[in-house]
Amino acid sequence: MFGVTILGNNSAIPAYDRHPTAQVVTLNEQLFLLDCGEATQMQLSRYKVRRSRINYILISHLHGDHYFGLIGLITSMGLLGREHPLHIYAPAPLQGILQAQLDVAAIVLPFPLHFHALQQEGVLVAEDKFSIECFAVYHRIECWGFIIRENRKPRKINKEQALAYNIPGYFYERLKNGDDYEPRNGETVKNEWVTIPNTPGRSYAYCADTIFNPEVAAKIKGVTMAYHEATYLDNLIERAANRFHSTSKQAATIARLAGIKQLLIGHFSSKYEALEPFLTEAQSIFPNTQLALEGVSYRIL
Amino acid sequence: MFGVTILGNNSAIPAYDRHPTAQVVTLNEQLFLLDCGEATQMQLSRYKVRRSRINYILISHLHGDHYFGLIGLITSMGLLGREHPLHIYAPAPLQGILQAQLDVAAIVLPFPLHFHALQQEGVLVAEDKFSIECFAVYHRIECWGFIIRENRKPRKINKEQALAYNIPGYFYERLKNGDDYEPRNGETVKNEWVTIPNTPGRSYAYCADTIFNPEVAAKIKGVTMAYHEATYLDNLIERAANRFHSTSKQAATIARLAGIKQLLIGHFSSKYEALEPFLTEAQSIFPNTQLALEGVSYRIL
Repeated sequence: MFGVTILGNNSAIPAYDRHPTAQVVTLNEQLFLLDCGEATQMQLSRYKVRRSRINYILISHLHGDHYFGLIGLITSMGLLGREHPLHIYAPAPLQGILQAQLDVAAIVLPFPLHFHALQQEGVLVAEDKFSIECFAVYHRIECWGFIIRENRKPRKINKEQALAYNIPGYFYERLKNGDDYEPRNGETVKNEWVTIPNTPGRSYAYCADTIFNPEVAAKIKGVTMAYHEATYLDNLIERAANRFHSTSKQAATIARLAGIKQLLIGHFSSKYEALEPFLTEAQSIFPNTQLALEGVSYRIL
Repeated sequence: MFGVTILGNNSAIPAYDRHPTAQVVTLNEQLFLLDCGEATQMQLSRYKVRRSRINYILISHLHGDHYFGLIGLITSMGLLGREHPLHIYAPAPLQGILQAQLDVAAIVLPFPLHFHALQQEGVLVAEDKFSIECFAVYHRIECWGFIIRENRKPRKINKEQALAYNIPGYFYERLKNGDDYEPRNGETVKNEWVTIPNTPGRSYAYCADTIFNPEVAAKIKGVTMAYHEATYLDNLIERAANRFHSTSKQAATIARLAGIKQLLIGHFSSKYEALEPFLTEAQSIFPNTQLALEGVSYRIL
């Protein structure tokens, strides 16, 4: 199971019962929280997402609609008796803000809170089953996007060939991991002679607040699904640029340039009550677009 | 019109769709926000309270369930173009926390934000039509209660007597304000000879998180309506004391000792789904008790 559940899809001021940005990515048993606008903890309850399973929180930037809910979530986790570690990746100044809020309340969290300041593009976490990367996007203040990748599954054994090369059964697990077989006497059996690649790992890119910039497409090239902000419709393209935001068509253009399979758009301006026009405009450029709707889970296929 | 609208009535962790503490007191055209837990700005929208009319925000203490919604409310007020001043009364360390959050987002608010650190008991604001006082309550960290009083209305003129003393019509307004009349020739006419007192001003006391302490009753003596926290039921009286909270019966005892007319109870623990037992227990000691229910406005009579 690899998917993303939207908890908030609105920009800046909450409106029309839409909440500020937050999403949860589920990758098998792991939950990743991407941004954490105000009331994210209430949204997690409403949509029955188990906060105890969130081990990674990634914060794109320090505009309030992307992180004001974080301190409430953390302190609630503490009140609920969490003991296992929580990792936060965010712009550096957030650490002092969180600590100040814990200090004035004389709170000592019952779990280890590991704060990692985002500093350069690249891999943040490389675990057996997944990895997390960050990349810079282009907003008014320091702002980051993230890619969550499921690791490429082990290679499949081509049984006919493996038998032909007399590879012993005990070595099959190592073959799956890509190792060559070196018999005591004789020539090395190259891994690719006796295995075939498995399905490539899927990936999800989160492009938080950003002006339209084709470099974003280069950074998320080939991911399976991307979320890209779409704050305005096409007729407000100048306002979007002035405020370092994108339009729906621009988000779709990034998706097309990046050669991805599925696009999600969100971060809708409070100006708009109806969201259908965002979908229509984006689909004119990238047909496989969906609106990021609160409470809905989108499977990454 | 003098009343209070409940926006959040739960303690600590939000539960059963109950929100952390926040209430709005309406006194004619003035709105006063008492505490501001997470998602208060959403609750203000939900219950159609006009945030532009809030000019005073009073924060009792720096546990997150009483102030995590403040920064979001303030920044939204800015985005909505507020220009008139906002006054915040709160424990001193909050100022640095708010400023740090504005700084990292490079936000300059378009309205004057006046932060007043709470330092000693007494009158905070004395305006023509109302006054605000603060008093210390007894919690784990620095914590304050507040009293909002409508000013005693002007005195009523006893027309028969005013005519008998030959008081000219132009002086009637000054009579209402309590002035004596001093004719050019002759003896001073004492105000109380020609006027009668009006109804006394009503008042609302807000007793935020506190352990049971009869001194609180002394501090709110004779107010019209009080809100007192009631985190637990009577069977958890020891837990209440250990955590510097009160039970429902203790809140009712304070109301009886203080000789008030109406009691509101709230700040219910997330342990409890049903709230009726809080009412039953409190009414056994102070019959004119009501549960503080979200979205409900209680008139101060």
